[in-house]
Amino acid sequence: MTRHLNKDTIVCMSLSARPSNFGTRFHNYLYDALDLDYLYKAFATDDIHGAIAGVRALRIRGCAISMPFKEAVIPLVDELDASARVIDSVNTVVNSDGYLKAYNTDYLAIYQLLEQYAVNPELPFILQGSGGMAKAVAAAFQARGFRNGTIVARNAARGQALAAQYGYQWAAGCGDLRAAILVNATPLGMAGAVEASQLAFSEQLIHSAEVVFDVVAMPARTPLIEAAQRQNKCVITGAEVFAIQAVEQFVLYTGIRPQEDLFQAAAAYARG
Amino acid sequence: MTRHLNKDTIVCMSLSARPSNFGTRFHNYLYDALDLDYLYKAFATDDIHGAIAGVRALRIRGCAISMPFKEAVIPLVDELDASARVIDSVNTVVNSDGYLKAYNTDYLAIYQLLEQYAVNPELPFILQGSGGMAKAVAAAFQARGFRNGTIVARNAARGQALAAQYGYQWAAGCGDLRAAILVNATPLGMAGAVEASQLAFSEQLIHSAEVVFDVVAMPARTPLIEAAQRQNKCVITGAEVFAIQAVEQFVLYTGIRPQEDLFQAAAAYARG
Repeated sequence: MTRHLNKDTIVCMSLSARPSNFGTRFHNYLYDALDLDYLYKAFATDDIHGAIAGVRALRIRGCAISMPFKEAVIPLVDELDASARVIDSVNTVVNSDGYLKAYNTDYLAIYQLLEQYAVNPELPFILQGSGGMAKAVAAAFQARGFRNGTIVARNAARGQALAAQYGYQWAAGCGDLRAAILVNATPLGMAGAVEASQLAFSEQLIHSAEVVFDVVAMPARTPLIEAAQRQNKCVITGAEVFAIQAVEQFVLYTGIRPQEDLFQAAAAYARG
Repeated sequence: MTRHLNKDTIVCMSLSARPSNFGTRFHNYLYDALDLDYLYKAFATDDIHGAIAGVRALRIRGCAISMPFKEAVIPLVDELDASARVIDSVNTVVNSDGYLKAYNTDYLAIYQLLEQYAVNPELPFILQGSGGMAKAVAAAFQARGFRNGTIVARNAARGQALAAQYGYQWAAGCGDLRAAILVNATPLGMAGAVEASQLAFSEQLIHSAEVVFDVVAMPARTPLIEAAQRQNKCVITGAEVFAIQAVEQFVLYTGIRPQEDLFQAAAAYARG
């Protein structure tokens, strides 16, 4: 039912080469529940310049930025918030009367989860991956005071660069590394990935860990998450990252922070 | 209620400096009634270049073009339909996989109404106005075979040019002109206009006419329409033009022509 829409309805959106339905369902659910005259729509595009010109010209209030535009959008905005600057990656653009400020709510979500689960910064961690999400993880761990970390990445150049940037070690593989905190920021275990059934860390590594954090968003239950739960480890999921980064976008766009139960209902609806 | 929206929902929109609510209400009413996964939103803009870049990049299916962009948009599209070409004015853009074709459904609506009311092309007409709507009227009358017409326009240069283009006469004022068909394409009588209470044609002129056509869209009942109805003349209103041009846009965007009663219900809802 769209007949209540009007010329003053505020529009938020997302840009991606291949959008998912999560954002559209999540934000519209909250607009309905909170009776806000907003509307959210995911758009597929292959032209980030034209799309951001449209965001400006059409006075779109907020725009999520997904693959593969998280870096390409940087020269097109007016200001980078610290959350985007520390990792040179944008996933959110807020339009205030034509002035575009860019954020990274993935970074904010990872930071928040480390706080929420009271993950001890004295503990060592292994972070697998060297892409954009791995960068957000490394930056959030550094900002939370973690000093003892190893970046595991097959791509030596990227892995070493990431480790150097945030003051951590690098290794090409897990070998006989052990750490209390294991973080996966690769597509291993992700639906649709070639290695969907593959464990991001060995059962042995999981056994010797306390906290297992799978930053991968979908599905909520990856093989890594399931193995860690079988071993009764403290588990943080990509679904949590995804929902928190979305609610932070919601707050940036509307100025309203939904109650926890409403937020959880919206996230559950958006996943379904 | 927007929670049914999803990444594949097709988006149509309008561009204007100061949008009305008619289009948004009209199209969304029909989408709901026909259970189409579409969404319509009016946007205000002052940047037609950025907005059309957005239409392309975001794969917007259809875009209505209102004041003051009806001519400025011409160089930004890929093709002009005859309806836009004959009057060098666009009010509709259809995006077919990135190819933008422009139409003028105001022209189409006026043409249709002359047909529907079986207005006799042997009769002389007086057309008041020299703006974009007057041009659409002159072109539609010419295409319907009307040979005997006078353009009345205070702006001599524009009035003479319009008359010359379509083979009609020009006069600076109505003076003692008489004609069976009177057409008003000026803002006289329009809500919000300075001359809201002013009659576009004198009671005497109306008395000697058969058909009175007020192309002005809002409100449906202008002083001219009311005077003509008091004199039991055949009356064609701007509200009819507006609704028909909107339904022609709907057909261009969706490929579906709504039944007459549904169309009337949507127009009534949109006006309310």
